[in-house]
Amino acid sequence: MVEVLKSSFEGILPVIEACIKDCSFIAIDTEFTGLSSNELNKNSLFDDGAARYIKQKDHIKQVTVSQIGISIFTEVPKENRYEASTFNFFLFPVSIGPVDVRFTCQSSSLRFLCQHNFDFNKFVYDGIPYLNEEQEILFHQALDDSLMVFESENNFDRREMKLLSTTIAEWLATAKEEDTIRLEKPAGVSDYSIYTQLRQTFPGISICCKDDTHVECQKLEESKRISKQLDEQEKERILDGILGFTRVFRLMVKHRKPLIGHNCMMDLMFIYEKFYRPLPDKYADFKRTLNELFPFLIDTKHVSSHLRPQFKETELFNNTGLMNLYQAFSSKEGMYIVLFSPSVSHSHAYTRYKNKSMIHEAGYDAYMAGYIFVRLAHLVAMQGVSSLVATPLTHRQHWVAMKPYIGAINVIRASINHISIEGPDPVSVRPEWLLVQSKKRAYPLKPLQLEGMFSAYGSVDVLLQGNREALVAVGNHRCAKDILTAFKSHNCLRVTKYVAWKHSPVARSLLWTSALMSGGVCAWLVWSASKKDS
Amino acid sequence: MVEVLKSSFEGILPVIEACIKDCSFIAIDTEFTGLSSNELNKNSLFDDGAARYIKQKDHIKQVTVSQIGISIFTEVPKENRYEASTFNFFLFPVSIGPVDVRFTCQSSSLRFLCQHNFDFNKFVYDGIPYLNEEQEILFHQALDDSLMVFESENNFDRREMKLLSTTIAEWLATAKEEDTIRLEKPAGVSDYSIYTQLRQTFPGISICCKDDTHVECQKLEESKRISKQLDEQEKERILDGILGFTRVFRLMVKHRKPLIGHNCMMDLMFIYEKFYRPLPDKYADFKRTLNELFPFLIDTKHVSSHLRPQFKETELFNNTGLMNLYQAFSSKEGMYIVLFSPSVSHSHAYTRYKNKSMIHEAGYDAYMAGYIFVRLAHLVAMQGVSSLVATPLTHRQHWVAMKPYIGAINVIRASINHISIEGPDPVSVRPEWLLVQSKKRAYPLKPLQLEGMFSAYGSVDVLLQGNREALVAVGNHRCAKDILTAFKSHNCLRVTKYVAWKHSPVARSLLWTSALMSGGVCAWLVWSASKKDS
Repeated sequence: MVEVLKSSFEGILPVIEACIKDCSFIAIDTEFTGLSSNELNKNSLFDDGAARYIKQKDHIKQVTVSQIGISIFTEVPKENRYEASTFNFFLFPVSIGPVDVRFTCQSSSLRFLCQHNFDFNKFVYDGIPYLNEEQEILFHQALDDSLMVFESENNFDRREMKLLSTTIAEWLATAKEEDTIRLEKPAGVSDYSIYTQLRQTFPGISICCKDDTHVECQKLEESKRISKQLDEQEKERILDGILGFTRVFRLMVKHRKPLIGHNCMMDLMFIYEKFYRPLPDKYADFKRTLNELFPFLIDTKHVSSHLRPQFKETELFNNTGLMNLYQAFSSKEGMYIVLFSPSVSHSHAYTRYKNKSMIHEAGYDAYMAGYIFVRLAHLVAMQGVSSLVATPLTHRQHWVAMKPYIGAINVIRASINHISIEGPDPVSVRPEWLLVQSKKRAYPLKPLQLEGMFSAYGSVDVLLQGNREALVAVGNHRCAKDILTAFKSHNCLRVTKYVAWKHSPVARSLLWTSALMSGGVCAWLVWSASKKDS
Repeated sequence: MVEVLKSSFEGILPVIEACIKDCSFIAIDTEFTGLSSNELNKNSLFDDGAARYIKQKDHIKQVTVSQIGISIFTEVPKENRYEASTFNFFLFPVSIGPVDVRFTCQSSSLRFLCQHNFDFNKFVYDGIPYLNEEQEILFHQALDDSLMVFESENNFDRREMKLLSTTIAEWLATAKEEDTIRLEKPAGVSDYSIYTQLRQTFPGISICCKDDTHVECQKLEESKRISKQLDEQEKERILDGILGFTRVFRLMVKHRKPLIGHNCMMDLMFIYEKFYRPLPDKYADFKRTLNELFPFLIDTKHVSSHLRPQFKETELFNNTGLMNLYQAFSSKEGMYIVLFSPSVSHSHAYTRYKNKSMIHEAGYDAYMAGYIFVRLAHLVAMQGVSSLVATPLTHRQHWVAMKPYIGAINVIRASINHISIEGPDPVSVRPEWLLVQSKKRAYPLKPLQLEGMFSAYGSVDVLLQGNREALVAVGNHRCAKDILTAFKSHNCLRVTKYVAWKHSPVARSLLWTSALMSGGVCAWLVWSASKKDS
């Protein structure tokens, strides 16, 4: 594993590009600054795919990614072996020129990162920038329109730039044409600020940010004095510096490699929003575009949940959490449950994770997801293959076996257990909702209280319908049955299965209307009959 | 100076209390995670006190205080000397039980903190908690109502607590009555979690968090088994641990010492919102309550701005920024501009700031504000005192001299330069607004463009009124005059002084109405006259 910071990013980028180009697949993971935007937006068993997307979207726009890990797995031909090159990026949002990102932190989420030794100083001091396309356009405009540049600079930049300008002005007073000066680059000031501001102030010199520490200026001949406008090459250079991790994202998209995550719905939404474009309003648009960006997506949480019933006799799938699966599959039993399991190793240069586990460091989590993918793929590919004819498999064969799982992304605590980005979502297999009614007028229902009562039987979510009725969504059939039994003869509560045609307000009002209408018709019939009689 | 962290807070609190009790005055400063909630909410020369309050209020509710400094100044009797004990607190909002604070960070504000070597790991890992009264009530309720306790615990706590519970259960299986066990306290888990959860799970034992690292449990005799409810003393103990810095705030209020800040409008609002109560909707309520909390408030930025014209011949007040004033007043000239200037020193135990300046560390900034207060107070007190009769002054005499400044808080970039928390705000002394009109239909006005054009003459803010009119608020009279001269014969723009009775939409419509009405009256008169004639 390599830790990638703003100060080392440019140097490592070519290595990352080479890895991505040649790899078999890429596993990802992200860490972020908040789990839910507020208490109302919590995940609920009532959510379908679209409802969950809308909840997460608002949240993801507000919080930010503090760390992203990518673990790049490459098959070593004829050795039945994969090698992983893992990169752990600290990210920090941009505050340069026209863009000054505001993001929300949730206290408990930062405390969670603490539990896993997250370094907040690396995050803020040396986090790599990134832009989505909307922000990139702002920079393009700002580079074309010098007015905006000065307006948005922060105070610190202004002070440092003033010092730099003064030095250049003094030098320029006596410099001859084609003289150059090499100056120390003020720490913390972006290439963006240097190019745009010095260009504006000193049209008669050429400027070049030599490396991370120096700026070189040359006094130009009268004839060569360039316009205040930056040329395209300079613009690109400046933008590259600000695009940061977005360039890695674009490499991942460009090379169309399989992308692996574990329970990665939020990771994917973060990647979309922060490095690509603002998340669209429509769920369908998100799914379609995500599928175009990453046509070969696999969620190992979904795959393992799906395989669990078939492997009941082993203990491999007892817990489908990332760490538990990794531990199960890297145990002897997990590795040799089928013949010719490929070995997985860290490639030479990436030794940080060799002898220790660093759970919830994004790079390590990404590596575990990729490792699990290899094991799952091999398990699936070998299903039904007799041990007499078994041979080691290639990545191609592994991939073919996993094709049925492409585009299925796990969702937690919802009415469905996964969504499909390739087409319509599956239908729910959760039990029907329960209907809770208060038997007594003096006993209004309270969601927190109901949750407390029912959660002893399993995971539940409560949706109040007025004062004396509530819907309860239940995680599984056993839990529903247990609740129905336990509350059969409760003093204050009546609990029944919710039947849409009987219980929904719409159905009820239809029923009432038709009852009244048919009643009316009857009355009319009686009346007109009696009239005839009379 | 002492740096105060969560881990050292309880130990230092008694020292702080003793200092506050005996001091002459307290100076404060805060650092926070964001400067403005969004671009629209930026400070503007159009703002009066109430408008500024409303803008800041929404912002302050969203961001958080990362550091607060209090510098406690005590007069040393008969030595013409003040001694300062300075405490620099790292703060971090609570995520325990029912409270999980979300706060906004502004990328540029965190980068600003970076420039001053802020340690973000101390902030998150070891920041002291704090509660306002609204949050404290939530905890009181949660402690009474065990239902809420479990519901809101975060995942990490749950895991660690499970391990602890298991250990206790195993011990309890064989323990005799009155046996005790001493267990390691899981790092990062609050006393709150330990008391509430263990009490609920094991009603038969007594629990005591011995120190920061251990929990002691005792198996109780049958007769002594206490109820699941916590007693008042235990509740208070738990709450004290969560109240954190709020306890220091309450000491400051209780002892009614003079409070000094420099340009401290935002500091005061932060203190109100985070340690006292949510900021009220009404500006008047905020002022009244703040005045009750801190009846002896002085803002050294306001005092020095006010003194500047009288001390034109010295260079002391050239720049009324905190650091500039401090440098000016700690120079030889600044110290001896009047006779018997008291000396100011750090008290023995607080050596961190002795030989270095640490600008924008809250503790150091607080110290500088207090230092400036001493110099200003002495300057004001000695005004008009002949050097023949001058003697050293007591703090009491200094304070009497400063009384006229009590309750006046500086505001930057607004229509007024300070507000008064003791009564109505002063009236604006800024120049009249300018009215900009586009001469050509094809030339709609753009605020950014106008700002760009006018800001060359001084600080301006632009407020668009439809497509072809804009109001411009100007910082000072010279700037207004320069703009009027420069744009006298502009191609596209007409710039005039704004005259309310002529230019405001209301005035205009009144004018039109009265014109039409008087026209109507005339017409009627003419008509009726003509009728008579006929």
